[in-house]
Order: sequence, then C-alpha cells, then structure tokens
Amino acid sequence: MDRGIPPDKVIITVAQTGAITNKSLNPNVPEQPAEIADSAYDCYNEGAAICHIHARDASGENTSEIGIFRDIHGRIREKCNLILQDSTGGGPNLSQEERIRCLDAGPEMASLNMGTLMRVSGPYKGIPWSNMPQEIDYYVGEMAKRGIKPEMEVYSHAMLAEVRRLIADGLVGKPYYVNMVLGMRYQGAEPATPDTLASMVRQLPAEAIFNCTAVGSAQTSLGTMAMIMGGCVRVGLEDNIYYRKGELAESNAQLVARMARIARELGKEPATPDEARQYLGLKNI
Amino acid sequence: MDRGIPPDKVIITVAQTGAITNKSLNPNVPEQPAEIADSAYDCYNEGAAICHIHARDASGENTSEIGIFRDIHGRIREKCNLILQDSTGGGPNLSQEERIRCLDAGPEMASLNMGTLMRVSGPYKGIPWSNMPQEIDYYVGEMAKRGIKPEMEVYSHAMLAEVRRLIADGLVGKPYYVNMVLGMRYQGAEPATPDTLASMVRQLPAEAIFNCTAVGSAQTSLGTMAMIMGGCVRVGLEDNIYYRKGELAESNAQLVARMARIARELGKEPATPDEARQYLGLKNI
Amino acid sequence: MDRGIPPDKVIITVAQTGAITNKSLNPNVPEQPAEIADSAYDCYNEGAAICHIHARDASGENTSEIGIFRDIHGRIREKCNLILQDSTGGGPNLSQEERIRCLDAGPEMASLNMGTLMRVSGPYKGIPWSNMPQEIDYYVGEMAKRGIKPEMEVYSHAMLAEVRRLIADGLVGKPYYVNMVLGMRYQGAEPATPDTLASMVRQLPAEAIFNCTAVGSAQTSLGTMAMIMGGCVRVGLEDNIYYRKGELAESNAQLVARMARIARELGKEPATPDEARQYLGLKNI
Amino acid sequence: MDRGIPPDKVIITVAQTGAITNKSLNPNVPEQPAEIADSAYDCYNEGAAICHIHARDASGENTSEIGIFRDIHGRIREKCNLILQDSTGGGPNLSQEERIRCLDAGPEMASLNMGTLMRVSGPYKGIPWSNMPQEIDYYVGEMAKRGIKPEMEVYSHAMLAEVRRLIADGLVGKPYYVNMVLGMRYQGAEPATPDTLASMVRQLPAEAIFNCTAVGSAQTSLGTMAMIMGGCVRVGLEDNIYYRKGELAESNAQLVARMARIARELGKEPATPDEARQYLGLKNI
Repeated sequence: MDRGIPPDKVIITVAQTGAITNKSLNPNVPEQPAEIADSAYDCYNEGAAICHIHARDASGENTSEIGIFRDIHGRIREKCNLILQDSTGGGPNLSQEERIRCLDAGPEMASLNMGTLMRVSGPYKGIPWSNMPQEIDYYVGEMAKRGIKPEMEVYSHAMLAEVRRLIADGLVGKPYYVNMVLGMRYQGAEPATPDTLASMVRQLPAEAIFNCTAVGSAQTSLGTMAMIMGGCVRVGLEDNIYYRKGELAESNAQLVARMARIARELGKEPATPDEARQYLGLKNI
Repeated sequence: MDRGIPPDKVIITVAQTGAITNKSLNPNVPEQPAEIADSAYDCYNEGAAICHIHARDASGENTSEIGIFRDIHGRIREKCNLILQDSTGGGPNLSQEERIRCLDAGPEMASLNMGTLMRVSGPYKGIPWSNMPQEIDYYVGEMAKRGIKPEMEVYSHAMLAEVRRLIADGLVGKPYYVNMVLGMRYQGAEPATPDTLASMVRQLPAEAIFNCTAVGSAQTSLGTMAMIMGGCVRVGLEDNIYYRKGELAESNAQLVARMARIARELGKEPATPDEARQYLGLKNI
Repeated sequence: MDRGIPPDKVIITVAQTGAITNKSLNPNVPEQPAEIADSAYDCYNEGAAICHIHARDASGENTSEIGIFRDIHGRIREKCNLILQDSTGGGPNLSQEERIRCLDAGPEMASLNMGTLMRVSGPYKGIPWSNMPQEIDYYVGEMAKRGIKPEMEVYSHAMLAEVRRLIADGLVGKPYYVNMVLGMRYQGAEPATPDTLASMVRQLPAEAIFNCTAVGSAQTSLGTMAMIMGGCVRVGLEDNIYYRKGELAESNAQLVARMARIARELGKEPATPDEARQYLGLKNI
Repeated sequence: MDRGIPPDKVIITVAQTGAITNKSLNPNVPEQPAEIADSAYDCYNEGAAICHIHARDASGENTSEIGIFRDIHGRIREKCNLILQDSTGGGPNLSQEERIRCLDAGPEMASLNMGTLMRVSGPYKGIPWSNMPQEIDYYVGEMAKRGIKPEMEVYSHAMLAEVRRLIADGLVGKPYYVNMVLGMRYQGAEPATPDTLASMVRQLPAEAIFNCTAVGSAQTSLGTMAMIMGGCVRVGLEDNIYYRKGELAESNAQLVARMARIARELGKEPATPDEARQYLGLKNI
C-alpha cells in the first residue's frame, strides 16, 4: 500500500461546525444532523475527502451523545463516502470522559489534542482545555483498539513533543498524521503566520503527513502555503466564518470550493475519500 | 509617500522573453518589438504592473542594441502605463559593456544580478555569468544617475551579501527591491523549494520588498507562497514555458492571468502600475 | 545611556536554589539566607552579575515570607553589589497572591513567566503552573510602580506571544529582557536543543536582550551557544545539579566559574553587576 | 563498524598552513615539511585528529609537487598517527591538473570544494576559484579509486546542491563528511554567523557528519557552536592568524589546545585519530 501524498494531490478536510461557532455568528453553520449531512455532501461534491465532526444537541449545545454522532454518521454515509473524523476536543462544556464517547460511533479517524491550552476570555476563562500525557495515551489506546486513526492536533512547537513521545513509545502508527492548528486565541497557541508554519513543518518527524488548520482570516492563505509545502489543508466554518473581509461565508462548501480551485491552479487535484484512505493507511480500504 | 506593499495588494511582474527561451522551445515567446508590446498589453490587462524586458535582434539573438530597446519601450508606452524594467543580465553572448547600454533607453527600473553563477552546460559552459562587486557598484551608480530603480537579483543566500553591502555603503535607496530567483540550473544557484524561499526571506534586510521568480515548474507555487509571505511575484515565459505539466503555455498573459486569479482567491488585488510606482518609490510618480 | 550587550561582554545570572531542587538532590543547594548569601558572594567572585532568588522557610519549603526575602537581600548586599532578581514563579505550593509579595522586598529585577505549563508528575500533577494574561499584566504593573525590571521567562515559542503583547501594549520598557527556559519537563515546555534555541532567537522582538536557561545536562552547552548568538546565560543548581555526567556540582560557584572560563575562551568577559545595570537600563545606576 | 560521532566526542582538524597565509602575516605559520610535521605533532598532542595539508616550495609558494607532499606525510607519520588530509583546493596559482596530484601521495582524506567562488581582490581578482560539476565528479572518482575519503567543502547553501547531487548519483559513500567553510571574503561565500551555520546545518543530508571551519575572528565561537550542534571543528592558522583580537597566535597547537579545552568544558573529549578513523569509516582502520 502506498503511503504519503503524491505531489499532484491534496487532502481537503472540512470542519463544518466546531464547538464555538454557531448560527448567531454565521447562520450558515450546520448544527443538526440533517444540516450537517446535507452540507457535508455539498463539500464532498466540491472536493473534500474528510469531514471533521462536532455534534450539537437540539438546543445547539455541544454534546457527546452517541446517538447524535451515529445519526450524523449514518446520514453522511447515505449520501457519500467521505471519511468521518470525529472531534475528541468536543467543547468546553464536555468532560474528558464525555469527549471520548464518540469513538463508539465508529469513525475512521478522530482528532486528538496534543496538550493543553488556556482559555483567556469568556465563561471558561482560566480553565485549561487540556489533554495531559496520560489522557493522550488513553485516547490513542482506545483508538487503536477500534482501528481509528488519530489526527494529532498541535497548536504550538511545544505540542510536537507529545507527538515525538507517542512515536518513540510506539503508540501511533505510520504515516503519522499531524494537524497544525494555528491562530487560536488561547494562551499556549501560536499565531497563524507563514513563519510559524514553516518553522513547525521543519520540526515534524519523518514519515509525518501534515495538515494545516489556520483559524480566522489566514485560513485560505496558510492552507495554500501548506499545500505548497507538501501538506494538506482544512477549511470550514468551525475555524473561519468569513469568505472574505466583512463577508460571511455562505456555506462550508463555498470554502471547500475555493480551496479546490486554488489547488487546481497549483497543479493539485483534491484527493477522493478513497484516495485519502489509501494515503493515510485507513483500515476501511 | 507610502512605501511597502499593502497586505491586500501584490505587484505582478511579467518576464516575457528572457535570454534563453525562444520560439523553438515555445512558439509563443515574443521576441520582436511588436510581439513584445502586444503581449505586454495583454499582460497589463490581466494584472501585470511591471514588464521585465530582454531585447532580441531580427534573428532572435540577444542584443544590446539601444534602438531595439527604445522601440520596445515606445510600443508598450503607446498601449499602457506598465513599468518598464530592462534586464542588465542581457544574455550569455553579451559583454558587461553591452549589458548596461539599455539604461540609456530610459527604463524606470533595471534588473541587476548580485553576483556570479557558473554555466554547467551548453555553449557557454564553464564561463561565469558574473557581476563582480566593482561591476555591481558601477551599474547601480549608472542607474542612480538616471533615476532608475535597481531590482537586485539574488540566486542564493550568498548573494544577499552584496545586497547588504550596497545598503551599508548607501548605494541603493529604500525601499530595497530584491528579486529572489530560484531554480536556475547554474552552479551557485539555489533550488526552487519552499524551504529555500522561507530561509532567504528570513535573511532579508529590513525595509526590503521582495519578489519571487521561481524558474520552471515551481513558478506558480513558489510565487504563490511569496505572495502569502508578503512578497511580490514574477511569472512569464522567460522563466517557465509550460502552463502545466506537458502543456506549453499559450501566452505570457495566460500565466499572468493565473497568478492574478490566485491572488484574488487569497484576498489580494494585483497592483496597477501607478500603485506599484508608489509602493516602490519610482521617480515617475 | 548605552543599551544592549557589547560583543565582548556577557551577563551571567546564577540561579542558586530554585523551587524544586533541594539538599536531598544535591547537598550543596543553598536554602537558608546565610547559605544563599555566602554562595552568592562566591558566584560574584567567579563572574556572576545577577542573582536569581528563591526563598525557603526553615524547613526548606518554598516561601513568600517577605522577611526572608529581605534577609537574603540584606545579607547579599553586605557582601557585594550583585543585581538581585527575585522569582515570582515561587513554587508549586504558593498562590498567585503569595508569589508577588517578594516585590516588596525591593529587588532590582524580578522574573515573570509568560504563560502556563502543566505539571505531568509528582504531587502537583495536572495543576497548571500558570500566569494568565491578566495576571501577567498585573505583575508587570506592580513591577513598573516599583521600578523593578521584569525578566520575561518564556518556555516555548508560544509564550513569545505574551512578550509581543506586552510590548505592543507598552507595558514593558526597552531593552526587553527575555529569558528562554528550555528543557523543563512540563507539558507546554520545549526541549533544550540547539534547534529550539536558534528558532526562538529568530522570533525575538527587536531590541530584546535574551538570556538562556537550559535545564539539565544542556545547561553549559546551550548557555554557551546563547553567548555565541549574542545572548546572556544563566547557570546554577536550580536548573542543573550536576557538574558533569554522574558528578554532582560542588557549588553554584563551580558552575559560574566554568561558564566564565568558556566566556573568556570565546573572547567575552563576564559583565560586572554595574556594567549589567547599564546594559539593562536598571534604575539603580 | 560504528558510524557517526558519539555525543561525548569531537573530531578536531587542524589546518596549519593554507594557501594564502604565510610567515609575513604570522611568522608562526609552518611552511616547510619539517616545520609542518613538528607543528602537527604538537597539535596531535593537544587533541587534533586530522591534519589538513597544503604544501609550499622552498620559496614559500603553493606547490603541487608530489615529493613535497610525500615528505610532509612521511615526517608526520614518523611522529604520530594523525589522519592526513590533503587539500585539493591547492592555491590560486595552481591549475586543476596540479591540484589533484597530491592524491598520489596517499592521504587518507582529501578536501574538495563543492563549487565556485570569485576572488574580489588581489592578483587573482576576477578569476573564479572553481570546481565545476565535471571536475568534482572527476576528483571524487580519483579519490574513490585510491580509497581516499572526500571532505566536501561548502562555502554556501548553494554548494550543498553539489553534495546532494553526489549522494544522489552514488559518487560518495556514507557517512558523508561535509565541511562548512564560512567567512571567506570571496563572492559566493557566506558569512561566519550563527544564523548561517544553523541554517546550513538544517539543510544537511541525512547521515552527514559536519565540520565547521569559520574563517577569521569567528573561528573559535562558530567552531564551538558546531560542536554543540553535534558537529566537528577545524582550527588553525590557515583560517585565522590571531589568538585573540590584536594578538597573533603563537602556534597552531595554541589554537587546537583552546578548542580542546572548550570541548572538555562542554563534556566532549577530542577523538583520537583512530577513533576518528572509525567514526568516518576510513579505510586504514
């Protein structure tokens, strides 16, 4: 099986919903299972291969309810073969125990934060958003049991230390999939700048495939730079609610479509879900 | 007068002809003054602000004939207000004395190589393509007398030493305009890779505006990365005869148009020639 | 007044005691005021200019007792003119309110952590060692009122964001004094490697003077590299209890003496306390 | 056989004579075979493992005379087992054909420049000091026939391209031994700064052992930084005639002794010649 991303391909992930954005910030954020599935299908048609999933309850609050994850999965699978990647970051109102429940909904991938950030404002100010080393080990162990590929999320150079530790301890398999999340307004996160991206890419372990998630207005530009550096890219309303300065995005698919157009201008074709499964060594292929 | 490039603008330079590409490699390379001017006008309409100019004689050979430079300038100026930037790199068949003659044709800018490269193949193999420090000083002096802005061309980290020397000696004025030419197949040139570009940008002097000229298939991708890093970009058949793998470019304008599309996807508008004059502090504005 | 460090000088800081090392790890750790002062005087004689101070109570536990800080200060001042720099990191058993009390003892400088680390083992496992942005602002404000120069301690690239914020908000004065602490075994801290040091130095703000504190066996080597890069260096039993592999250090002065010898081999003379006051712009000079 | 340098070892090379320094610049430069051998033995006693050799005729001019190289080799071998590394850079008065003759004297190693520099002053101004790719290939081929290990000398990021080419073409064997020569006052050479050293080390191929030769006053400091980064170091009067500012070095051994002292302060022991043979995979071991 081939590993790694061919130079003429790019894996586009869409993060549609998130834990913090909502309809009051942008009415086009999909929150309920049917909305999420309809929007996911549009993104699939525009070039997305992976769908990063957060679940909300009927009131729009973050939830770990396994039934809702299953509902979202089922509805998307009816429409297309997108890779389903559940968030274990969940949301600030969810406990560690709650955040891991989604694994039982049977995603092919799950995101996993490689450390701790401090919230500096809002109702959760001063409360760490944390995965301690033991928690990280527990989460990757649970994923391993279920054949779920972890997307290791790093918000800083420092968090790469946990990635190196997991590799050294043999707790994650090749190809290592690292998502660099830049620009979060938390203490401990690094800014979404070209210099930060280039510097972190230089420190990646060998045989890592990287993804770039730039939060806010740099979503398109840093994602493009990541593609040029041989990486993958995540877009979507979770990370950025605008299409351009002062103009709310109409949909997740609008953001996917733009990234797909840029990819093609650069000579790269968005990978299909099955191509992405092959590159990432997912079990289902 | 404002200096520097606003974050929502990019200066696109087109290098249409060059010294080595020709109609046998791509029949769409413009060589004669009327062709060059027509093509330049198309590029202007697609978003180019600066036209980098090499002259050819009637047989297609590189020439320093001042009359031909004047003819090209006149024909372009009839059509549009593109900034005219003559090459003092000329071509391998031209002597140092010949290469400087174009300054008398009255361009607003002129390119100037910051050192020496060794040709490793072809009829000029083993002959240095050289500007020694004294020659560089002479060239910038002649440009200064005529109010011509030098575009300092660097093919390597090492050539940045000449840029620093010119600045330290007060021989060039702000904003310093540095063109990074990456991917030339000469000994002494560095490859067109994201790492090289990022590393050289880090070593730029303060108050430098940079341009990126990636030779060959990386033209679009590294030029895009340069824009994302706050720089400018050069495209054109001089540096790259293909539109995509295996497909010759139809025209210079086709390459400019693609870069302008990418710029707009990234939230940047190509600067008009007069905007570029302002950003670069050119005399004519 | 001159700012910045002349290339033939280096400021050596000694961190003698710390919050975690103690006599059971190395019997030569000075804990009580008289010990601390005697050891400080030895370090002064070997080339230290700044003494970084933690206080312990009679049982050896970290304390914020102002009387003990005053006792330490008084005893050192009787012997020599070392710059006194109190730690506001204190120790894991001290609250935010307690950690700031030392400012009333009248040090010339005080250290201040630029963010949050997570302890991964021991009795304080899972408890953040934290300065949130508001706390940082409060601390620098209190220092400013008293004419105390902050040493901004950064354990990661991410913490440089707080340094940039303080500068942008005008909360700290030039020259900015940044201490890079590398190699702490906390989540959120970066390793003591040449690559991390070089990368963080590249991201320093202009007009920053930097100090390097490498924890553990890299203390001497990374401190030396920092001197070569134009920075300053901190040594001492707080950060490293060994003189070489398997051999406990005999004293803080032994570690200072080695760094002073290396500095002189490299053509640098340890700055006297008064020279350091001048370079750092301290009030007392 | 083990390859690579153990972290507690460093290979010190001494470059005693060079092509440009001479007794008029520093009377302690050894030029004649007996002087060179006596000085080499002193350096061996101080910790050098490799002796880099240039030969002079009776008048002190650079020579390619095989008899003189053999005389030097024989005299050194009588005294000690230093690794003999002849220079194929020779000197500006020697032709390509002359510069390779030393290989017949049977050194274990030979230096080889990975490209071209332009002399900017003196009698050879404007004349390239050049190894073109074909010449490099010829030289490494001749070395391979004789079992001589090339030391690939790079003066710039750009010259690393030739190293990569040789590796890709299988023309050199592991461990690749790369000498970074920084600070030469030739066009095409990069300055002896920490940033240049760190940047070039990052671009080294895997399985490369590197050596640092800093020309001029940075010899000690950049050599020390190289050791800290895991590399090796070259010192000697060829590259630096001063012991400290304004004070000529008394001997090559004085410079070796200082570097050995610094190495030991940093916990590294100078490798013996036989240890270095093992680390570099030389034939004679």
